[in-house]
Amino acid sequence: MTVTILFAAHPDKWPEYEAPLNAALSETKLSYRLVTEADPDSVDYIVYAPNSTLQDFRPYSRLKAVLNLWAGVETIVGNPTLTVPLARMVDPAMTQGMTEYVVGHVMRHHLRLDKHILNTSGAWAPAAPPLAGDRTVAVLGLGALGRAAGTTLAQLGFHVVGWSRSAKDIPNIESYHGESGLSEALAKAEIAVLLLPNTPDTENLLNAESLRLLPQGAVILNPGRGSLIDDEALLAALDDGHIGHATLDVFRNEPLPSEHPYWRHSRVTVTPHIASETRPGSASRTIAVNIKRGEDGAPFLHLVDREKGY
Amino acid sequence: MTVTILFAAHPDKWPEYEAPLNAALSETKLSYRLVTEADPDSVDYIVYAPNSTLQDFRPYSRLKAVLNLWAGVETIVGNPTLTVPLARMVDPAMTQGMTEYVVGHVMRHHLRLDKHILNTSGAWAPAAPPLAGDRTVAVLGLGALGRAAGTTLAQLGFHVVGWSRSAKDIPNIESYHGESGLSEALAKAEIAVLLLPNTPDTENLLNAESLRLLPQGAVILNPGRGSLIDDEALLAALDDGHIGHATLDVFRNEPLPSEHPYWRHSRVTVTPHIASETRPGSASRTIAVNIKRGEDGAPFLHLVDREKGY
Repeated sequence: MTVTILFAAHPDKWPEYEAPLNAALSETKLSYRLVTEADPDSVDYIVYAPNSTLQDFRPYSRLKAVLNLWAGVETIVGNPTLTVPLARMVDPAMTQGMTEYVVGHVMRHHLRLDKHILNTSGAWAPAAPPLAGDRTVAVLGLGALGRAAGTTLAQLGFHVVGWSRSAKDIPNIESYHGESGLSEALAKAEIAVLLLPNTPDTENLLNAESLRLLPQGAVILNPGRGSLIDDEALLAALDDGHIGHATLDVFRNEPLPSEHPYWRHSRVTVTPHIASETRPGSASRTIAVNIKRGEDGAPFLHLVDREKGY
Repeated sequence: MTVTILFAAHPDKWPEYEAPLNAALSETKLSYRLVTEADPDSVDYIVYAPNSTLQDFRPYSRLKAVLNLWAGVETIVGNPTLTVPLARMVDPAMTQGMTEYVVGHVMRHHLRLDKHILNTSGAWAPAAPPLAGDRTVAVLGLGALGRAAGTTLAQLGFHVVGWSRSAKDIPNIESYHGESGLSEALAKAEIAVLLLPNTPDTENLLNAESLRLLPQGAVILNPGRGSLIDDEALLAALDDGHIGHATLDVFRNEPLPSEHPYWRHSRVTVTPHIASETRPGSASRTIAVNIKRGEDGAPFLHLVDREKGY
């Protein structure tokens, strides 16, 4: 039996993915056809991105699974026509990229690099920063990305505190969970890294009240989701100096409008949603492995829990 | 027998070191006296810094060793009156601090953080950087500091090339040595980290000729010694764009004079000799361990090779 795989991400992505997907699928030894158009009744799997024009899955009568190219599924998980298993993208290269972004910006704030990058005055003012062991970084969200970033920060010597909705036990990460755990984790966070998914539960997790739980001068790093932060509350906390700096990679509206106050705020750094990018080569391998598992009758990897929304 | 230990660093350092040195020496269970003045004939060990007023060691007739508080010994190693063993400082906290500085600035250049830190224009221009595995960092100098920094960079995923005068075999570091090895290492170095000692051999290691061996746009990080770089040649290579950026922590004259062109060069970041600082607590433990070894008849650790000069 030939497996029919429909590529239904944004058409821009086809030139990037055609060769790597074919390479990865060939390695599975499955008989397959990878197409960008097909009779819905013939399709076994859909390689998908939530910005696709395909939003009605009802005609796909024999569909076995939808394999998302994005880690985020918030705009598709609630689609009532999608009833088959939905797998998130877990791309080792994306995890590595995210870890690099987090390590880079944590080190930047830990070492106060901006002060030196911006100092062209000729003022020589030596002051060695504390060592990583004297610095507490909190990672909020302990999924694949948070776990990887937190573990690497711990290897570098940081005291790493983690928080997630449910209890986790991860070596070298002092983990908290639930509502009361959140207050404890925030109270310790000299640098707070947001790596939570976008769900109704995480919306505005950092708001006027929770921002006050962070220590005076805390730094916020958000490479997770724009919806995690109440932007008005953050701007107020930056203005009054309670929050020392925010480095933000994700926003409720992207591109971030050029007139948004974040762009010109002296305590804010905007990065244009670059913390974590799916790489076609490794993402294609993730998808091919999942299709092979489906054909072999093995459980799919990285399935979305529809209840939790991620 | 009571061991007499003379503290002969700059007097500014005594308040920082008195308590930690006494704490570390007490742990050795030796009977000792730690003093800032003593009859030279009574002194067994000198805790030393090269900017001390003590420069003539001849009166110290029973001196067993000089224990340097600094990693660098270039201004004392040639002193003809110093004939007893001379130990460098190898402070685990200093090694950690240096590794953090190197990791921070390597990540900064790898991720091109400056572009985002300085962008307040509202221009959204996503471009994900390459992953660390696609980036080659060369560490020149594979002593305790270079080895630690290189190993940590390799753990983060970078392709790490190392170079030292003599052959070294270090896991995860592709090591080169000698003159021809230097050309090979430089040719691969997208980011070059200088962690060599100051010796006649390393003076102006980066000069007009060797700078040309680096790839177009290479970044130089110098937390080692100011003398490693021919400053005029570096400024010329920065001006013509062959060198993309230089982040410099050490200089031939410190503090770097406020009128020095490095301060205002758009491709240069000056940090005020903060990459690596001896911490009194851990440095005192290193010294106490060495004194204990001397009293036990064990060989001293971290001895300077007078021939090599470090």
